[in-house]
Amino acid sequence: MSSNAFGALFRFTTWGESHGPAIGCVVDGCPPRIPLAAADIQKYLDRRKPGQSKYTTQRREPDEVEIQSGVFDGLTTGTPISLVIRNVDQRSKDYSDIAPKFRPGHADYTYDMKYGIRDYRGGGRSSARETAMRVAAGAVARKVLESQVEGGVQIRAALVQMGPHGIDRDRWNWDQVDENPFFCPDAEAARRWADYLDGVRKAGSSCGAVIEVVAEGVPVGLGAPIYGKLDADLAAAMMSINAVKGVEVGAGFEAAALSGEENADEIRMGNDGRPIFRSNKAGGVLGGISTGQPVVARFAVKPTSSILQPRDTVTRDGEETEIVTKGRHDPCVGIRAVPVGEAMMALVLADHLLRHRAQCGPPLPAAAPLRS
Amino acid sequence: MSSNAFGALFRFTTWGESHGPAIGCVVDGCPPRIPLAAADIQKYLDRRKPGQSKYTTQRREPDEVEIQSGVFDGLTTGTPISLVIRNVDQRSKDYSDIAPKFRPGHADYTYDMKYGIRDYRGGGRSSARETAMRVAAGAVARKVLESQVEGGVQIRAALVQMGPHGIDRDRWNWDQVDENPFFCPDAEAARRWADYLDGVRKAGSSCGAVIEVVAEGVPVGLGAPIYGKLDADLAAAMMSINAVKGVEVGAGFEAAALSGEENADEIRMGNDGRPIFRSNKAGGVLGGISTGQPVVARFAVKPTSSILQPRDTVTRDGEETEIVTKGRHDPCVGIRAVPVGEAMMALVLADHLLRHRAQCGPPLPAAAPLRS
Amino acid sequence: MSSNAFGALFRFTTWGESHGPAIGCVVDGCPPRIPLAAADIQKYLDRRKPGQSKYTTQRREPDEVEIQSGVFDGLTTGTPISLVIRNVDQRSKDYSDIAPKFRPGHADYTYDMKYGIRDYRGGGRSSARETAMRVAAGAVARKVLESQVEGGVQIRAALVQMGPHGIDRDRWNWDQVDENPFFCPDAEAARRWADYLDGVRKAGSSCGAVIEVVAEGVPVGLGAPIYGKLDADLAAAMMSINAVKGVEVGAGFEAAALSGEENADEIRMGNDGRPIFRSNKAGGVLGGISTGQPVVARFAVKPTSSILQPRDTVTRDGEETEIVTKGRHDPCVGIRAVPVGEAMMALVLADHLLRHRAQCGPPLPAAAPLRS
Amino acid sequence: MSSNAFGALFRFTTWGESHGPAIGCVVDGCPPRIPLAAADIQKYLDRRKPGQSKYTTQRREPDEVEIQSGVFDGLTTGTPISLVIRNVDQRSKDYSDIAPKFRPGHADYTYDMKYGIRDYRGGGRSSARETAMRVAAGAVARKVLESQVEGGVQIRAALVQMGPHGIDRDRWNWDQVDENPFFCPDAEAARRWADYLDGVRKAGSSCGAVIEVVAEGVPVGLGAPIYGKLDADLAAAMMSINAVKGVEVGAGFEAAALSGEENADEIRMGNDGRPIFRSNKAGGVLGGISTGQPVVARFAVKPTSSILQPRDTVTRDGEETEIVTKGRHDPCVGIRAVPVGEAMMALVLADHLLRHRAQCGPPLPAAAPLRS
Repeated sequence: MSSNAFGALFRFTTWGESHGPAIGCVVDGCPPRIPLAAADIQKYLDRRKPGQSKYTTQRREPDEVEIQSGVFDGLTTGTPISLVIRNVDQRSKDYSDIAPKFRPGHADYTYDMKYGIRDYRGGGRSSARETAMRVAAGAVARKVLESQVEGGVQIRAALVQMGPHGIDRDRWNWDQVDENPFFCPDAEAARRWADYLDGVRKAGSSCGAVIEVVAEGVPVGLGAPIYGKLDADLAAAMMSINAVKGVEVGAGFEAAALSGEENADEIRMGNDGRPIFRSNKAGGVLGGISTGQPVVARFAVKPTSSILQPRDTVTRDGEETEIVTKGRHDPCVGIRAVPVGEAMMALVLADHLLRHRAQCGPPLPAAAPLRS
Repeated sequence: MSSNAFGALFRFTTWGESHGPAIGCVVDGCPPRIPLAAADIQKYLDRRKPGQSKYTTQRREPDEVEIQSGVFDGLTTGTPISLVIRNVDQRSKDYSDIAPKFRPGHADYTYDMKYGIRDYRGGGRSSARETAMRVAAGAVARKVLESQVEGGVQIRAALVQMGPHGIDRDRWNWDQVDENPFFCPDAEAARRWADYLDGVRKAGSSCGAVIEVVAEGVPVGLGAPIYGKLDADLAAAMMSINAVKGVEVGAGFEAAALSGEENADEIRMGNDGRPIFRSNKAGGVLGGISTGQPVVARFAVKPTSSILQPRDTVTRDGEETEIVTKGRHDPCVGIRAVPVGEAMMALVLADHLLRHRAQCGPPLPAAAPLRS
Repeated sequence: MSSNAFGALFRFTTWGESHGPAIGCVVDGCPPRIPLAAADIQKYLDRRKPGQSKYTTQRREPDEVEIQSGVFDGLTTGTPISLVIRNVDQRSKDYSDIAPKFRPGHADYTYDMKYGIRDYRGGGRSSARETAMRVAAGAVARKVLESQVEGGVQIRAALVQMGPHGIDRDRWNWDQVDENPFFCPDAEAARRWADYLDGVRKAGSSCGAVIEVVAEGVPVGLGAPIYGKLDADLAAAMMSINAVKGVEVGAGFEAAALSGEENADEIRMGNDGRPIFRSNKAGGVLGGISTGQPVVARFAVKPTSSILQPRDTVTRDGEETEIVTKGRHDPCVGIRAVPVGEAMMALVLADHLLRHRAQCGPPLPAAAPLRS
Repeated sequence: MSSNAFGALFRFTTWGESHGPAIGCVVDGCPPRIPLAAADIQKYLDRRKPGQSKYTTQRREPDEVEIQSGVFDGLTTGTPISLVIRNVDQRSKDYSDIAPKFRPGHADYTYDMKYGIRDYRGGGRSSARETAMRVAAGAVARKVLESQVEGGVQIRAALVQMGPHGIDRDRWNWDQVDENPFFCPDAEAARRWADYLDGVRKAGSSCGAVIEVVAEGVPVGLGAPIYGKLDADLAAAMMSINAVKGVEVGAGFEAAALSGEENADEIRMGNDGRPIFRSNKAGGVLGGISTGQPVVARFAVKPTSSILQPRDTVTRDGEETEIVTKGRHDPCVGIRAVPVGEAMMALVLADHLLRHRAQCGPPLPAAAPLRS
């Protein structure tokens, strides 16, 4: 048990603080002989990198990843893969003002109460900077899925709600996701969000978001009931991302309002003995095991707690005061959570691929024929 | 790693099928010298027991628990506590009709694809019957919290939505929860739900629900960031319950629509150096660590997949057919998930109490004075 | 983490006390569709059963195992297998004399100091009775190895030293092992041991033993360096058996006295691209990974601490006294540790088979051709 | 589960290859507010460092450790501690000769068969270079024991046998251990060993060794039966060290030859209600739990497999050949295993300290008064 590690068999451990010399992770359990280069990881880090638009923190971090072990002649060796990113832009002075104050809605209070340590430099370990290593580890997980699942697994995510503003699902276009600074699949919504977020930013405020992650090509049979259910692990994975307050799979909370008939994903036979589902209310998971349909998860991110609007709080010494967080903060942390959500999906799936293989042998393809 | 076990230090493993001779669990890691008797467990099992109203399955199970080990002279010994419940009412014949058919929205399809085994008897291992052992283990967890946390921890849950029908939070009354067959805290809503659910049942349909679990008196500092966050573990715990499709903490999905100011739980000083929060949007968890405020989680349960309404499906042999599930099923499985949700909260908290104690020593009380 | 469970993927949890109503275990992670019946387990339990000769405890226990879950229509289902044995012959009164006294060399002192509980009934949880469940779980592990490894894996053990008396390895005959009450592979030594042990028993004394366990047909490549090495897990497995004080693999402690040349197992090519080793000083493990040669482990068991010879000790209340342990005790607990050693070997190998499969795919046979 | 990590609660994960850019580890679960500086770690690394005498490899490595995270203002923060050592002297060319050949008794064969990768550069991951990170993590474990156990825990180790040559225990002097290049507690034996090892080295041969590790001041009650026994974890810890073939605790294998009376550590009352043991055959562990007496473990190291004496072997391509390993190798790897054994003892004890604290609260001192 290690509270800074995730995954049972494909397992990664992260380390590092926002303003320390570096952040890193160790990926253990990776199958051998998988082609892996820094560039395979870098491309995902680049999507998450801060400072890419005026809507994300202006901290300038190249976020260049180095592979320190576990790869020989371009192939994974089956031994631990150590990944590291040096921190470059650490302006600790920005935080001196707020050092003794607790930010309402921020982890600084609970870290201090738990550990008796106040690392005021950008949130220390609780900073969202840690999520860079999830993206790095997630890139390795994608290579595992690519090499070990026939046809590959495609994992994509999109922002489907910013503040109170949703999208029109009829306009969903995956190609749009990388065409706007919000990872929004609806070009029209993205335009409106730009104005909305400008207003939020100028008001010194912040807003939340909802992210949807979709994995296609997931083999049938992944998931380890009862307590290693695929959806239970996804829930933990998504909820562990900074600022996340809710997670749902498939129809999610809306399922509560459906009738049994509406919620049933009826089954027909396709060609070649493969069953076809008429709908996907299940979000690709039944009884904690993947059905072969797309695995669909959504998570809600709360507004950034570091805002310019003054809020009442107290100091470490128990004095009442108010706080204004200057520094460089994302007005909507949900945006940069999009690649993180994808990474967590990849990590959970890679782990369950190995778990399935251990107990049941090679996994069946997503569209598997019936067994008998 | 064991997929049928939950918890890192206060850990329980469940076993048993719906129609086998018995179901049981082993609780490992329980502190020694805690008073424990079967009656301490039975009272929670009785709340979850089937057949208590016309709204739950008519299967008659006394669900009497036996303690087989780990207790000596009325005290826990620190060794594994084995709990068992004999299955009494196992009418396997009810299932013969549907044996070869997959129920849409049911785990029988995925279990068969994963394991190549079709245990058609009441869902086998995937049956909600397994949750009885969660309630039993949860009762032990409550004893741990009671004996090891000053002032105790009070854990209660309620049904806050049935199908599309919610409650009026202004009428919330915990005393009402045990006064109606729905664990509803709003007496008026409960009356309306009775009519609604009667209609659902008569139509051979089913409906979903939302459950809210509240833990009061939780010490400050529980939770093990980054991947053992209290809310991440709660998310996994709740999502692992049968038929659950969504989990949220505090403001949950609504947090996405709030501004940073609205979402900030402002802090003032109370007496004796104890901080007071003006609100609890955080649901008692910040950065994955408990704040000392009530821990609040909600989860959504989908409608029962076993319904009398015919649905299109296929057989194990790939023939298209339709299915009608007779048997004895809860029209709203969410109802009996209420004590299960409480149990999972207790189990997560007991586990994190021990985890905190290991790394940081005795936990601080819920309303702890500031450290400096 | 559960201190009463062993194995990472093929994992079992044991519970129960010497004088409680029953003892049991839960085996989790077993692959599905493996034929399994109670008789498959019973035959190994019968070898370990007490009261089979005058050299083992006279406690009469039929040790009949029941399978309570995880098997359907004679096949494992992939869900937890619960095994239970009722305790029949529990004469607690035998222990009343010694209830307040600590037996020198016995766990009663440390259990009391750790847990603050004195379960004087036959050692409670610390009793060697727990090892029956290792044998039961080990029988399931054997079925896994049998069904998932081509050619099967043969696991046998023998007593190679009783008290100070060894065997003549030139007379080693596996068929002899079940022909004498000591599991001794050397018929002549067995005869001498009979006299020796009679003397020990009559003197109210006890003696130790050394057991050797050999596994043949183990696939190449099992073991997970660095901290899940096959030999490290074997060491933990064997050392966890009651009264064991030492474990070695291959040449073991004698390797310290060998030269590098003597210790090198030279390699030649056999037919079909399969390497052949000239010796097996390594005991079938190099770098923590199996070589395909027989895996050979030995462990030393100390003399039973419950003896009729009076020893100085103290009571729970700190009074100096002396103790004589009547009751029914094995003069040489090492004898009944033989089937336990086999079981632990099977459990470690089954676990590593699954671990290997997760990371590297199907295992290579014991006599595998070179990879290139 | 991570095969490159050790420890349940005080857990470290190592990474890195002999000839990669660096080696490192992540220590997770360390209690907060413990003073920690690089110098605290460096002093133990310096004891293990290669090239300190003509008896160890001439590879020149400064082995300078950097702390990359988990420490703020000189105190541990409770978050992961990342430690790294850059590799400096990596002369890969030395290995070109032997690249395609398997060294008899070396892990290169099994790594290749398991992973399908041949990292010929100094053994890659299987190199004893990895043990530097055990020593580093062990130094952090010592700080934990120092700060959390009243009176501290003193952990020391010594070489007690080199090749076939033992020591005279009557001449045991801990002060001698750092006065000779062999960590030998017997000055006279050390002198003889110098000649012996010179001969071994000049003959291009190698020899094994036995190391004894002693921990004094260990609290009563550490150890988590049944499968997390203190001695079982020590056995795994020691056996996981490169080239170790045997482990024993207390009287170890000799216990097999003792009578029950001889093996019983009789108990008398000392002052203040504290029991005193007349002997320590148990090696400080009974029933898998520490007794408060010194914890004593020994392990056997086989001779280095890399020798100048030619040995028969085969190549990766299945050609028969012979091998002579030039490079720079320790004639007796056991010497440098001494600080590694100490580190593993510290790591196991720190882990069990936290485990005990989780379940049972603050540990009792080594010389604890009886409970009642």
